[in-house]
Amino acid sequence: MAFEDIRIVLIEPAHPGNIGAVARAMKTMSLRRLVLVRPRQFPSEDAERRAMGAIDILQRALVVDDLDQAIGDCRLVIGGSARARTFPHRVLDARQCGAQLIEETAAGEPAALVFGPERTGLENHDLDRCSHQVLIPTNEAFSSLNLASAVQLICYEIFLAAREPITPEEVDPAELPSSQNEMEYFYDHLTRALDSRGFLDGQMREVTIMKLRRLFGRSRPNSGELKLLHTLTRLIHRDGG
Amino acid sequence: MAFEDIRIVLIEPAHPGNIGAVARAMKTMSLRRLVLVRPRQFPSEDAERRAMGAIDILQRALVVDDLDQAIGDCRLVIGGSARARTFPHRVLDARQCGAQLIEETAAGEPAALVFGPERTGLENHDLDRCSHQVLIPTNEAFSSLNLASAVQLICYEIFLAAREPITPEEVDPAELPSSQNEMEYFYDHLTRALDSRGFLDGQMREVTIMKLRRLFGRSRPNSGELKLLHTLTRLIHRDGG
Repeated sequence: MAFEDIRIVLIEPAHPGNIGAVARAMKTMSLRRLVLVRPRQFPSEDAERRAMGAIDILQRALVVDDLDQAIGDCRLVIGGSARARTFPHRVLDARQCGAQLIEETAAGEPAALVFGPERTGLENHDLDRCSHQVLIPTNEAFSSLNLASAVQLICYEIFLAAREPITPEEVDPAELPSSQNEMEYFYDHLTRALDSRGFLDGQMREVTIMKLRRLFGRSRPNSGELKLLHTLTRLIHRDGG
Repeated sequence: MAFEDIRIVLIEPAHPGNIGAVARAMKTMSLRRLVLVRPRQFPSEDAERRAMGAIDILQRALVVDDLDQAIGDCRLVIGGSARARTFPHRVLDARQCGAQLIEETAAGEPAALVFGPERTGLENHDLDRCSHQVLIPTNEAFSSLNLASAVQLICYEIFLAAREPITPEEVDPAELPSSQNEMEYFYDHLTRALDSRGFLDGQMREVTIMKLRRLFGRSRPNSGELKLLHTLTRLIHRDGG
């Protein structure tokens, strides 16, 4: 069931009241899985008060230490961001985001929607772990959506998308995009290979790694393709490692 | 201008914080006209705090004694209600509501969206003053939308309905995907590099080249990224070619 497979991930939410409001927003649209990465304060009475009848969502919420624990097993990871970044993520609007999440979870695969802290939004290094970015259309002069409002709008689009009849396609598991953990393993291999050739020395090291992550993250390689990329990486490595 | 002609009317809002959250929700979607019917407490610091950058909406808000003052000049009055009533209003979902409001205000006619108190929603006698009712699709087992969330969702649908046909944005040429010619040049380079390492020998040669084309073609690298891929390819090449 798609709703069960879509998790809402909040990174470092500062105000417990917002966590409660997010839980309520989720439940009104049938979403149930909340993951909190380093919440400043949780559990909390403020969260429970704002959750109203959605306390069960808070009780089932998973609290983790880092984003990778929250999304490691997901092939589709969508980052919520108030503004388009300069680098070319695949950008979805809220409606497309709902449709994509419902489509890709139809076969029971987990997917994640990730939101950053209230004041700052997602950091670039967190957005780098996302294959897509969702942008909610807003007033250009005032795009300051409350965290719970952003979650509410996207959950609403998920709920609407789920109402459309979907015939899940038969997908060959070998054709599925690799998981986030598998991608991290590849980035690590590639980084070591480039290091072995002295290619990543100097100031541009971090920028180059980030560029490569974005490029390969965007292509969402399946298992066979990822294997091929590992082979190319071994060809780069000085010792064939 | 349609946005200016659509007013959001709150009847007896109990919590001033909610008034502020409604103002913020409105402004993110370009709505500006807020009318308060017998608010329990207004103006209020709570409202201002929750409004964030939307204090101008609060400052311009009209406070009136009864609903007729708020909607008397409107031909289209839509009541927001969590459940369908037994009497035969024309019921719109949120999306239809947005479209109808934009359509009917295109000629400068005022229209109103009316919401009841947080706990009870619209009374029947208030709903009687509405020509339509809007129902936001929600989880049947938990339809308890926060007042500001309900306003947020409907304002979002109004905003989407009002969007003009989109004019293509100015795109930085450096961010554009590479041309097919540039991609062919890269595939050729990569093929030569792999050949130099004996990697493409044998039966699988064509299949492997095809796989690589699909993988890199899918990521649609821009010029900077393609340059990076050429660099990696040189690292693969036996002679650094």
